Amino acid sequence: MDKKTLLPLLAPEISKIESAMQAEFANITSSLLVEVVTHGIFNGGKRIRPILTMLSARLAAYSNMPDGIASEEELTPPNELYRLAMVFEFLHGASLLHDDVIDHADTRRGTETAHSKWNNEAAILAGDYLHTKAMTLAGTVGDSHCLALIGTATAAMIDAEFLQSQAVEQQDSSEETYFQVLRGKTGALIGSACEVGVFFADGNEAQCQALRTYGDALGLAFQMVDDLLDYQGDTSKTGKAIGNDFSEGKMTLPLIHALTEANPEHRQTLTNLLQATPAQRQQAQQQATEIITNAGGFSYTRQGAETLIEAAIEALNIFPDCQAKATLIGIAHYVLSRDK
Amino acid sequence: MDKKTLLPLLAPEISKIESAMQAEFANITSSLLVEVVTHGIFNGGKRIRPILTMLSARLAAYSNMPDGIASEEELTPPNELYRLAMVFEFLHGASLLHDDVIDHADTRRGTETAHSKWNNEAAILAGDYLHTKAMTLAGTVGDSHCLALIGTATAAMIDAEFLQSQAVEQQDSSEETYFQVLRGKTGALIGSACEVGVFFADGNEAQCQALRTYGDALGLAFQMVDDLLDYQGDTSKTGKAIGNDFSEGKMTLPLIHALTEANPEHRQTLTNLLQATPAQRQQAQQQATEIITNAGGFSYTRQGAETLIEAAIEALNIFPDCQAKATLIGIAHYVLSRDK
Repeated sequence: MDKKTLLPLLAPEISKIESAMQAEFANITSSLLVEVVTHGIFNGGKRIRPILTMLSARLAAYSNMPDGIASEEELTPPNELYRLAMVFEFLHGASLLHDDVIDHADTRRGTETAHSKWNNEAAILAGDYLHTKAMTLAGTVGDSHCLALIGTATAAMIDAEFLQSQAVEQQDSSEETYFQVLRGKTGALIGSACEVGVFFADGNEAQCQALRTYGDALGLAFQMVDDLLDYQGDTSKTGKAIGNDFSEGKMTLPLIHALTEANPEHRQTLTNLLQATPAQRQQAQQQATEIITNAGGFSYTRQGAETLIEAAIEALNIFPDCQAKATLIGIAHYVLSRDK
Repeated sequence: MDKKTLLPLLAPEISKIESAMQAEFANITSSLLVEVVTHGIFNGGKRIRPILTMLSARLAAYSNMPDGIASEEELTPPNELYRLAMVFEFLHGASLLHDDVIDHADTRRGTETAHSKWNNEAAILAGDYLHTKAMTLAGTVGDSHCLALIGTATAAMIDAEFLQSQAVEQQDSSEETYFQVLRGKTGALIGSACEVGVFFADGNEAQCQALRTYGDALGLAFQMVDDLLDYQGDTSKTGKAIGNDFSEGKMTLPLIHALTEANPEHRQTLTNLLQATPAQRQQAQQQATEIITNAGGFSYTRQGAETLIEAAIEALNIFPDCQAKATLIGIAHYVLSRDK
């Protein structure tokens, strides 16, 4: 399933999720706060996290339905499910608002960022607002189990950001640290977006576990492809400068692998560059990319992502074939094929 | 009850709350994150919010105990209550971490702030971490009702920050806006710190309402005294520069009252100063203070705070006399007498 097939399938759900998000701002008194959170949330995002919640819930509901009661198409998700799915988009929006302050980023997806359009105060507090709403919805529309899942994943995400900073500082080039950071930063929240959907739809323990496995693996693979695109992407498609990770000295998998597998001379070159300045690394970007290519760093990373996507799809084997399952499989394939 | 009587009464509870907070950081993987949240939370704060939760719970528990079962001293709060009380300190700590980034503050209570000791990233993300933990504890140690109370109060707090920015921008000098901002910024969270304690101790609806009234009024009065100290405090005691609010053009009650009650000439002087630059206002601080004094702005504000404290204490009338009640009354009196 490619992007052209996926998008029309998802569009109606995306539109319902967006209406639900908009409605959530009705209780805000300050018109300025409404403006800033709206700017933060309606930013051209793909809504992949809430979509995963909706699809996971649909998959569980369909699988557990007694035969012949209704067809999959007739399943109408309750409004509450849209509000629960929204939690993941609010959390994502909150972290983007804060990230843009931290990175001093002036634009995101071609649009002025909130802290640049208003100021740091507006961006930080609007992020806090989305965070508060997300956690409140998690435990009131959902229950204490949903809240615990989401709270644990969010805490792990922040913990991983700090681990990553420490890894950069310490030039920690172990695969173990890389995957530990990845699991926290991306895997945990995507895994819980899927698991919460199944749990809300009264899926059993095995079904919850299957979707968590799917989501964890999907999140990891997504981030690994991101790390590949940072070296190999087409700027005109990704909209991001190439080589940022290397300039910043970020230990992503292609580089980590090359540091182990390159010949001694090349390894020394990489090690020297990692001790040089960001500007020097930026200049040596092409050389580094060649060394990583020769050491198999990119193919190793892609292979790793492919293995994870296979595992994600395999986890869905316990479910009967249906549209929701096909779409989840389609999303998994898309993660590998995306070029932006 | 003055500070000297209050402190020894509260010290053992404060120490238990602090141990509980420390224990909550045991699951963090990154040593850097532990350092930053510890710095953010163990900052010499008075722990007034969790203390209010503990006292409110104790008051309700004692009031509802069948006669003769146990004396008040024998009531041992469950560990869970300390973890729930901690929520309010975590939320407070999160908002201080973020405020210091927003205000570019280098020190707080004589100690280097987190963003100054580390960087914006560390301070913002550590705030997010405390926020996440707080909300998760609210809905898991507490329940969905506790979470809803705390989530609503936190959202109101942020909403009020934006309202305040808008009020400064629009030079909105209405008492109505002032109290609306105050209720959101301080009243709501202190009110819910009290109410959650009663609710957790199985207090009835009237008891919950009484402690919410107490907390709301206490929070408002606390902030009004803060606004007085900003003009009239002793820098050597408050540790804060005098006249900040006026320099920043903040419409606090003493100034709002003077804008209505001063004679036409004085009113014009204030209005002109509000259209001047912060530096010009800082220079004219003494003149402004005199005008506000003559117009009765300070006595009006103090009277307002006194009336609120009376109402707070009156709300406790439905409870029998006991140590917890006496301490809550003592805290209310302390709010009026404090000079820092």
